[in-house]
Amino acid sequence: MVVSGVVPPLCTPLTADGEVDTRSLGSLVEHVLAAGAHAVFVLGTSGESALLTDAQRAAALAAAVEAVAGRVPVLAGVIDMTTARVLDHARAAAALGADALVATAPFYTGTHPAEVADHFRRVRAGAGLPLLAYDIPSAVHSKLSAPTLLELAEDGTLAGLKDSSGDLGALRRLLVALRERGRAHDFAVLTGSELTVDAALLAGADGVVPGLGNVDPAGYVRLYEHARAGRWAEAAAEQDRLAALFALVDAGGTAEMSGSAAALGGFKAALRALGVIECAATAAPLRVLPDHAVARVRRLLAEAGLL
Amino acid sequence: MVVSGVVPPLCTPLTADGEVDTRSLGSLVEHVLAAGAHAVFVLGTSGESALLTDAQRAAALAAAVEAVAGRVPVLAGVIDMTTARVLDHARAAAALGADALVATAPFYTGTHPAEVADHFRRVRAGAGLPLLAYDIPSAVHSKLSAPTLLELAEDGTLAGLKDSSGDLGALRRLLVALRERGRAHDFAVLTGSELTVDAALLAGADGVVPGLGNVDPAGYVRLYEHARAGRWAEAAAEQDRLAALFALVDAGGTAEMSGSAAALGGFKAALRALGVIECAATAAPLRVLPDHAVARVRRLLAEAGLL
Amino acid sequence: MVVSGVVPPLCTPLTADGEVDTRSLGSLVEHVLAAGAHAVFVLGTSGESALLTDAQRAAALAAAVEAVAGRVPVLAGVIDMTTARVLDHARAAAALGADALVATAPFYTGTHPAEVADHFRRVRAGAGLPLLAYDIPSAVHSKLSAPTLLELAEDGTLAGLKDSSGDLGALRRLLVALRERGRAHDFAVLTGSELTVDAALLAGADGVVPGLGNVDPAGYVRLYEHARAGRWAEAAAEQDRLAALFALVDAGGTAEMSGSAAALGGFKAALRALGVIECAATAAPLRVLPDHAVARVRRLLAEAGLL
Amino acid sequence: MVVSGVVPPLCTPLTADGEVDTRSLGSLVEHVLAAGAHAVFVLGTSGESALLTDAQRAAALAAAVEAVAGRVPVLAGVIDMTTARVLDHARAAAALGADALVATAPFYTGTHPAEVADHFRRVRAGAGLPLLAYDIPSAVHSKLSAPTLLELAEDGTLAGLKDSSGDLGALRRLLVALRERGRAHDFAVLTGSELTVDAALLAGADGVVPGLGNVDPAGYVRLYEHARAGRWAEAAAEQDRLAALFALVDAGGTAEMSGSAAALGGFKAALRALGVIECAATAAPLRVLPDHAVARVRRLLAEAGLL
Repeated sequence: MVVSGVVPPLCTPLTADGEVDTRSLGSLVEHVLAAGAHAVFVLGTSGESALLTDAQRAAALAAAVEAVAGRVPVLAGVIDMTTARVLDHARAAAALGADALVATAPFYTGTHPAEVADHFRRVRAGAGLPLLAYDIPSAVHSKLSAPTLLELAEDGTLAGLKDSSGDLGALRRLLVALRERGRAHDFAVLTGSELTVDAALLAGADGVVPGLGNVDPAGYVRLYEHARAGRWAEAAAEQDRLAALFALVDAGGTAEMSGSAAALGGFKAALRALGVIECAATAAPLRVLPDHAVARVRRLLAEAGLL
Repeated sequence: MVVSGVVPPLCTPLTADGEVDTRSLGSLVEHVLAAGAHAVFVLGTSGESALLTDAQRAAALAAAVEAVAGRVPVLAGVIDMTTARVLDHARAAAALGADALVATAPFYTGTHPAEVADHFRRVRAGAGLPLLAYDIPSAVHSKLSAPTLLELAEDGTLAGLKDSSGDLGALRRLLVALRERGRAHDFAVLTGSELTVDAALLAGADGVVPGLGNVDPAGYVRLYEHARAGRWAEAAAEQDRLAALFALVDAGGTAEMSGSAAALGGFKAALRALGVIECAATAAPLRVLPDHAVARVRRLLAEAGLL
Repeated sequence: MVVSGVVPPLCTPLTADGEVDTRSLGSLVEHVLAAGAHAVFVLGTSGESALLTDAQRAAALAAAVEAVAGRVPVLAGVIDMTTARVLDHARAAAALGADALVATAPFYTGTHPAEVADHFRRVRAGAGLPLLAYDIPSAVHSKLSAPTLLELAEDGTLAGLKDSSGDLGALRRLLVALRERGRAHDFAVLTGSELTVDAALLAGADGVVPGLGNVDPAGYVRLYEHARAGRWAEAAAEQDRLAALFALVDAGGTAEMSGSAAALGGFKAALRALGVIECAATAAPLRVLPDHAVARVRRLLAEAGLL
Repeated sequence: MVVSGVVPPLCTPLTADGEVDTRSLGSLVEHVLAAGAHAVFVLGTSGESALLTDAQRAAALAAAVEAVAGRVPVLAGVIDMTTARVLDHARAAAALGADALVATAPFYTGTHPAEVADHFRRVRAGAGLPLLAYDIPSAVHSKLSAPTLLELAEDGTLAGLKDSSGDLGALRRLLVALRERGRAHDFAVLTGSELTVDAALLAGADGVVPGLGNVDPAGYVRLYEHARAGRWAEAAAEQDRLAALFALVDAGGTAEMSGSAAALGGFKAALRALGVIECAATAAPLRVLPDHAVARVRRLLAEAGLL
């Protein structure tokens, strides 16, 4: 299994003028490792990788690799529109010391399932690192199908899946099918859905990549340990507490800013309130969380016992 | 709580010439009640209510009420495009002896959340029976929002929710919010997602309305009882078995027929194979399940230990 | 050709307590026929048919047939979820004196193109009146494909198409294909897009079914006559004037009401300002156009030279 | 007006091993300029820019600028997910000699209209070249709203719009609104819809960016000149001929390949058949057009009088 357990998709702290704040990123790495995170995922959606230049992506990944210093695996997102562009990111990530890569299906350009499979095969072959598929229909506007994933699990192209589709029913069917085919042991199924971690683990998922795990990694580690020990009522109670805390992604509302800006701004406002990062800025063109929303984030942290 | 537990959304058996087969419907009622179902839901999506005339709907509901004979509550779907039309169905269902109604938001015509709320208020006021909201974005093409549902729970308009959205994260947040507001005890949250019943119950849902529960009601009752007793590993194992059986909805494929035709045809082919109903016909214009698919349905039943 | 020219999709005037105002409907019929309309379409989307009970639909259709009194053809919408339900409406419409029927593909229940074709064949066979397909993806959530339409044009199932898809490129390809197959003369292609009537006629469409034609039927008749005479610059100028007037569908905004409520309310507010109908009420649960929006509707009518 | 007339969105010819074939690109430039094209658009969707690495994009743009040699304006696509990434492309394009830039709204990351406006303002300010907005909901999964476009036209951020939304009704309203505000003369409205060029010009558009204009630029120039001279019947006849030819985008079907692969492969197969480019390869992971489809492309070219 290339990775399992709690794998926070690290936010990318920025300075007030929009550059990668590598010192704060180091501090964030310590925050999650001190809480017991089993790996980190750099340059995912929570890491604003879609909003960073190639130079900024490289700066963030290099800083994370240095801060982690081999203590846990570092997964690197290689998010771009199509195969050749993803391969450029993959080679860069490999050179910077990533342990595994996470790639979406092509987007912007529509693709056929056979083209999606070919895409993952080419990325795997070209990059020389274990590859996880990243299923995130809200961003990519297509869903990875079970037959495609099973085919790529069976031929060794994919070492796992980060599922941010929110479709736990489909994930269940995939997990059952992997077991039927005897591939469950070497294909890592990670859920990216913050609010159904207990359910995904109950269904047999191997780990969890929760954006909210930047803010409360200890909560997700407790949840994970309860689940591994079969303490499901305690896992659910922890999940309920985290579900209440998750309201920080809505603090900004959507009348004046995007859901992306509200969610990423909410995570960063919380991290700043907790003293983990210096500045809560998100990348342009995302709007800044207004003061009343920052105040609400602080209240939610207090209610969750974190502040 | 108006309803809880396992509530199969009954298929509507048809004769070869397309009429409601009331005898087979009675047999289906016995099939699910013998397995321990806690209520039945007539004229839902699995009941092909969108495909039945008003006369056929009435025939099906009357037959179900008669067959149930007061042993468990009968929920009736009142599915139509907008308020006045739903009210006509609601009055008809009340006259036929339904115990509670299940209505979607308006569809065909786009609506604002304030209009959706007004719709449910008018249906509740006009029908005089407890009302559950039916959230099924795949059919209605909009999702009921948490603020709307909470508002209608708090003012007593809604007695519950049948959630067929597949969005377990949103359901989790709703359950947490209902508990925070002290409404969890009198608002019934039922999941319509066959594959995540264990997860929904772990999150605090009150019951389950699984289409597959027509075929294997005993499996869902076992699952429910495991969950109520805190035997989560056993619940998950039962859920996994049911997830494998659920493949019968795909037996028809989608190259030559709709997913609706494949799923409804799969349920009915299984019920016929089990000797519960006489004829596996679905309503026009749904295509008929081909023989090879019926054979696959039988193999899946055998693998699940049902045949 | 079953129908061509300007075919207003008649609004259904309602009284303040929500009943069909047959006197105002008669007045609306005179309003459009006096302007030179070539046919009328009753119980379409602009006619709020999705919001009316079966009894109200019958009342509206009967009143329109009586008011038209044979002067032009009366097309009747038979909008419902699936085949058997549409057939019930079709038989009712035939009995009430409709000259042709307009039906959508099935909705709520997902369907395969082969099932869509079967649906239209069954409706055509069962109703005994010429049948037009109504392509309105914004309501039905699927689009009629060119192969399906061509097949149903060639075998005589469909006498025409009302295209409210807004996809003029697809309409162009259909028109070219109909000419290639020699079916252009007996298959009526009508556009339901108020803002591209000149373009559709330039591409070879036979007529137009503009919701805005309730308000300014004379404008659309002028546009149509310019187009038929090859006066394309004049047609475009008339279309531009109508495009400015079309802003009345936005007067209500979408912050507090649905787009449906704003558009239907805008049409009815204009008809009331023009003295054509008594009351601007729309059916529940659509919200009422606020006063400032009604004032804006009046200004737009004045700017268009109608008030 | 920064640009008007026929502006082919140039295909990017590739060699069999996937590199930019600059010699064929030069030949394509001559093909369209000899036909009378008024400008060229490099690195658009038809130019496979989503499928090219940054190095390949630079190679293609440099080759096009060199081949055009100042005879007409060169527009360059700067397609990427968000602001900072687009700015990197914008600076590169400016350095390579582009005359104007074409950028989409952000994608992958969801954005609020205020963020979209900010995005265009930052790209305009950072790049120092005239900027056109590229509205292509099929790829970007959001539509540019009229209020945003009008605001950015009025404050000088945008010099124009390439509209590939297919929504000619919305385009009509925009054109009317630009004229009302007196901005029609300095804001270039270009349609990217191959099949409604006559309609867009009748509505007042300034030019056309048709992918099919790679194959038959002379046809689009004739269409444009007919329109400019008010010969609308002739324009429509030319448009009908081009609509029939457009079937080459479907030759590959969608059972075995994506619509993108079929369309781009169709254009390139046609260009190869016409002797304009050396090799019809498209970039990975798009599947290759099968032989029977290439044969169909040749037949369509023959029917259109091009072969």
